Amino acid sequence: MSNSFIELNEIFLRTRENIHDFMAILTPRIENAQDDHERLYYHHIYEEEEQRLDRLNALIPKLDYFNDNDNARTADNFEFIHILQDISLEKFGLHNFLEHLDLALFTFKDTEHAENLTRMRNSTDTDYQAIKVILSDLNDTFDGAASAPGSVPTDEKEDVNQHLKIDKYTTNDDQQQKYVVNDSDKPAKQLTVGSLKK
Amino acid sequence: MSNSFIELNEIFLRTRENIHDFMAILTPRIENAQDDHERLYYHHIYEEEEQRLDRLNALIPKLDYFNDNDNARTADNFEFIHILQDISLEKFGLHNFLEHLDLALFTFKDTEHAENLTRMRNSTDTDYQAIKVILSDLNDTFDGAASAPGSVPTDEKEDVNQHLKIDKYTTNDDQQQKYVVNDSDKPAKQLTVGSLKK
Repeated sequence: MSNSFIELNEIFLRTRENIHDFMAILTPRIENAQDDHERLYYHHIYEEEEQRLDRLNALIPKLDYFNDNDNARTADNFEFIHILQDISLEKFGLHNFLEHLDLALFTFKDTEHAENLTRMRNSTDTDYQAIKVILSDLNDTFDGAASAPGSVPTDEKEDVNQHLKIDKYTTNDDQQQKYVVNDSDKPAKQLTVGSLKK
Repeated sequence: MSNSFIELNEIFLRTRENIHDFMAILTPRIENAQDDHERLYYHHIYEEEEQRLDRLNALIPKLDYFNDNDNARTADNFEFIHILQDISLEKFGLHNFLEHLDLALFTFKDTEHAENLTRMRNSTDTDYQAIKVILSDLNDTFDGAASAPGSVPTDEKEDVNQHLKIDKYTTNDDQQQKYVVNDSDKPAKQLTVGSLKK
């Protein structure tokens, strides 16, 4: 289990770096938005990722403590159980980030940021697949404690209608999900508010 | 403080009802999306609100317990302090819901859902202003314990550049923020992906 905690630390440090990069990409879009809708859209995603950053900044040092103190990692340590729950929420956070990046790839795909966003997208996807395995192991070891309410995305729920899910997030096949810049997966059709109203 | 907990319970029951309404509005948009971008956009907001629903479904019964047991509400009760932190995260949740509803009002404004979305928007705004006061009081009473990492939106942070915030979320003036359907605040210009790319 010790290795799991080192791996979690690496995942969280990596995604924290990516959040900073992503916020830097969003910032000029907020500042130079052409109308209130565009401004709110980018502000909203920025704010959600900044919230995730706040959570990670609090979680990472706590994780370090349990990394250094194997003996404290017990099912009767209330603080440790809460850490397990917080880690499970960051699984949802990584899934959500993946969707933020995929949304961004639609509107930034012809910009200088596409390559960096694609890199973050693929790195996040790999980390997301990894954290699911780690949490599954932690749940086996600690009797399901690493499952906070809100840790399971719609895409992974068994009791949700399939048509509300997005296929590419419901598979564990890591290779299938890799994106490359300008790949043919991207829809040729452009999303407009007009098209949303029909 | 007892009244605060009753009021929190009412706020959470109300917003839970609104989440169900909002998810029902989003569902046909996901099912009938015209392309992958539109489908991901509505799926993503649906998923975030469903996560909030999962959190609230876990939090409301815990809140009921502390509503019924005044004596358990003490600073040295670890579970109670965690409840205070969870409540503070639901303050962020209400702020985020407000932005989801405002985003929806852009794309649903000419539909049969506009009135219901506007009702939810104004109700959420009122509840958001109320929970800020309640949390401020709880923080005074419990030495700042009702402030989880991630409880403060960008719009309310003091160390954030003003140009990254949205003005209407940074004021406490409740009256200024009320919306009516078809009011003149809404931009005439339509958001298109094309406009986002410039």
